[in-house]
Amino acid sequence: MKELRIGMLGLGTVARGVASMIRRNGQGIAHRTGIPLRLVRIATRNPGKTWGLNLEGVRVDADVDALTRADDVDVVVELMGGLDPAERLLLSALDHGKHVVTANKALIAERGMNLFETAQKNNRELSFEAAVAGAVPIVKAIRESLAANHIESIHGILNGTCNYILTEMRERGLSFDQTLADAQKKGYAEADPSFDVDGIDTAHKLAILSAIAWGTPPDFRSIHVEGIRRITDSDITWAAEMGYRIKLLAIAKRRDHGLELRVQPTLVTVSSMVSQVEGVFNAVFVKGDYAGTTMYHGRGAGEQPTASAVVADLVDLARNQGAGLASRVPPLSVMPQHLSPLPVHDIADLKCEYYVRLAVVDRPGVLAEITSILASHGISIDAIHQKGRAVSQEAVALVIVTHECLEKEMQASLAAMERLESVRGKPMVIRMESGLT
Amino acid sequence: MKELRIGMLGLGTVARGVASMIRRNGQGIAHRTGIPLRLVRIATRNPGKTWGLNLEGVRVDADVDALTRADDVDVVVELMGGLDPAERLLLSALDHGKHVVTANKALIAERGMNLFETAQKNNRELSFEAAVAGAVPIVKAIRESLAANHIESIHGILNGTCNYILTEMRERGLSFDQTLADAQKKGYAEADPSFDVDGIDTAHKLAILSAIAWGTPPDFRSIHVEGIRRITDSDITWAAEMGYRIKLLAIAKRRDHGLELRVQPTLVTVSSMVSQVEGVFNAVFVKGDYAGTTMYHGRGAGEQPTASAVVADLVDLARNQGAGLASRVPPLSVMPQHLSPLPVHDIADLKCEYYVRLAVVDRPGVLAEITSILASHGISIDAIHQKGRAVSQEAVALVIVTHECLEKEMQASLAAMERLESVRGKPMVIRMESGLT
Repeated sequence: MKELRIGMLGLGTVARGVASMIRRNGQGIAHRTGIPLRLVRIATRNPGKTWGLNLEGVRVDADVDALTRADDVDVVVELMGGLDPAERLLLSALDHGKHVVTANKALIAERGMNLFETAQKNNRELSFEAAVAGAVPIVKAIRESLAANHIESIHGILNGTCNYILTEMRERGLSFDQTLADAQKKGYAEADPSFDVDGIDTAHKLAILSAIAWGTPPDFRSIHVEGIRRITDSDITWAAEMGYRIKLLAIAKRRDHGLELRVQPTLVTVSSMVSQVEGVFNAVFVKGDYAGTTMYHGRGAGEQPTASAVVADLVDLARNQGAGLASRVPPLSVMPQHLSPLPVHDIADLKCEYYVRLAVVDRPGVLAEITSILASHGISIDAIHQKGRAVSQEAVALVIVTHECLEKEMQASLAAMERLESVRGKPMVIRMESGLT
Repeated sequence: MKELRIGMLGLGTVARGVASMIRRNGQGIAHRTGIPLRLVRIATRNPGKTWGLNLEGVRVDADVDALTRADDVDVVVELMGGLDPAERLLLSALDHGKHVVTANKALIAERGMNLFETAQKNNRELSFEAAVAGAVPIVKAIRESLAANHIESIHGILNGTCNYILTEMRERGLSFDQTLADAQKKGYAEADPSFDVDGIDTAHKLAILSAIAWGTPPDFRSIHVEGIRRITDSDITWAAEMGYRIKLLAIAKRRDHGLELRVQPTLVTVSSMVSQVEGVFNAVFVKGDYAGTTMYHGRGAGEQPTASAVVADLVDLARNQGAGLASRVPPLSVMPQHLSPLPVHDIADLKCEYYVRLAVVDRPGVLAEITSILASHGISIDAIHQKGRAVSQEAVALVIVTHECLEKEMQASLAAMERLESVRGKPMVIRMESGLT
């Protein structure tokens, strides 16, 4: 192979970064791979619009299907996003003997196995470093650098939009709605933000990381997912006063007979590294039995950082081709015959510490009612705060931090509290995560 | 190849971690590589002492030379440290057709080219992930994940002993000597600590990282190296009061016509991620033109974390062997024919901001003398602090923070200040590094 000929599906932000990186850094790349990368084709909805890119020698049209079958393409880079038609096109590319590089987290998380099996059948490579945490090389780190470790846990801040919103809410004291509107104005959040703020995007990425860490098929549907819409500025203020920050964390843990997989707003101590991950940055903390906790931090989105990850996959592919092999590392780290699903624990079995915020009527006996509910469910209290801040004409905020207890006991307690005449509205509960680096 | 047969030179701390990891995690590793790792031989000075390890089926003797020639060894893992006889043994291993994995930073930094060329001649692999930052996979990150970036800069905290000492000095308010003695008692510092505290170890690691980042032969001798012996508790206190922490940083920057390479105690803002790297931890910040700054953090030393990196190299090797190739990635990232040295700038040409601490006689006119020296060298002052703290019977501490200026102008100023009758002792100067993540 004299060069690696690339066909690209899509010409959005990331694709433009890939085109520019291959052109600008082509010589340095060729010195590292021995095989130059050459962009030969782009298929995009609007082939007339090339954004001022230098696309000399590149065929640009709208025929996505033809690109997946083209004789002059060695690898198809998919940057369209979405499940359909991306899946169909990549299956076609693999069946036509092309390697595939994609940044499509939804596709890998929800329909990855079909693609992996098709890649294997055709002895082609399928890479997706850019699907998780942008420029941060977390897929390679888990799949290669930590491959000899038993992974104990993964904690990730994997969605820049959510992390930006939570950072801004804390720094500027604004509400979720105000901050979201501001993020949308600045281009950090989509017009329809639900994919990000409801935690779906984070869950897609967690499904991918946990699959690689434990050699299981990606299991997006089993992840318990909560987003950040219900977090109020007063939660952030309470957390800060107690020495915590609130982060939307992707959490995966190996437990006795399966996995714990969840995406939830989480209180983390302000002195931990994870609470220092601010704004649009992403970070992943991986705990291995020998490595201990290693942490990876950087820009999780954007034209150039995501392009860096896409082109890193192309560099890997070119180096493998140069050395005369395909499929050096299986997509999910373990060899396909050793992939095996692990049961995912029901969230009801979760054990952790909790932050609970209630609006209560300010009169004698209320505290006794609430604490006796907790006691009856075997939940002991670590701290309790009531500052007489009026949250409405007749109610004040009461914040309780518990010791470790079972989620189902907590849920039963919350239901019982909600039934009290002295409790107004729905209690807010946020899980806490201690012992983080 | 049915298994990867390993011969290990040395049975010190890290070697014991490697032996234990291969045994305990062997099945998980084999599921990832397809080729089991098998430890077949160990050569160690004291073969009778096996530390309670299960070494069933492993031949343990003292014949290091025989191990490098043994027919039943595919890869030699060198964990003896030091330049000699490690270099001779690894050259012998390569010439006898063995691959090599080493954690020996001094050897790679000072005599790496000889080893790389011998490996290439014999078409064998030579890997050294464990030589830099222990469990943190920074060699692979730069060599593979960031291979398509033009690297702009690297900032590293690469020596856990120094970082532990600086952290303890700050947290406990103790002197360097007291803290060092305490670190020695706890096993965090060697009996002869000069390799660590004088910055040599950090410089070895920087030589390796910069070679990989820019495709140059490792150039340890050109690195400007300062250690942490002269840092006092009062420097740490002054820094803290101004919003800084002091870290021993390895710094590499691509400049117009070459590289800036230095190891120096450095003031970094307390709000930066780099200042959050505390105790024995290591971290590396790499800035690429597309990726932006990505950061890698974890345990930089110790039995298990370093073993994790050594075994990661063995996993890579096994996967390459399984896929039927050697030398997929050149040791210094670029292909050997494209390696080319870059000139290293003289430290006199460095431009940065400076922290200067002087002991001055507390009388009128002193400040005028000092500030006019700085002015005459074109150095402008950002902040000046004098709190009347007596540093001796007649002198007080004066701390100056400058705007960016040339190192040679700073050195000339310091020499002039030292000649003043009103300045007692040698001025302390520490460089500052702004704009870090």
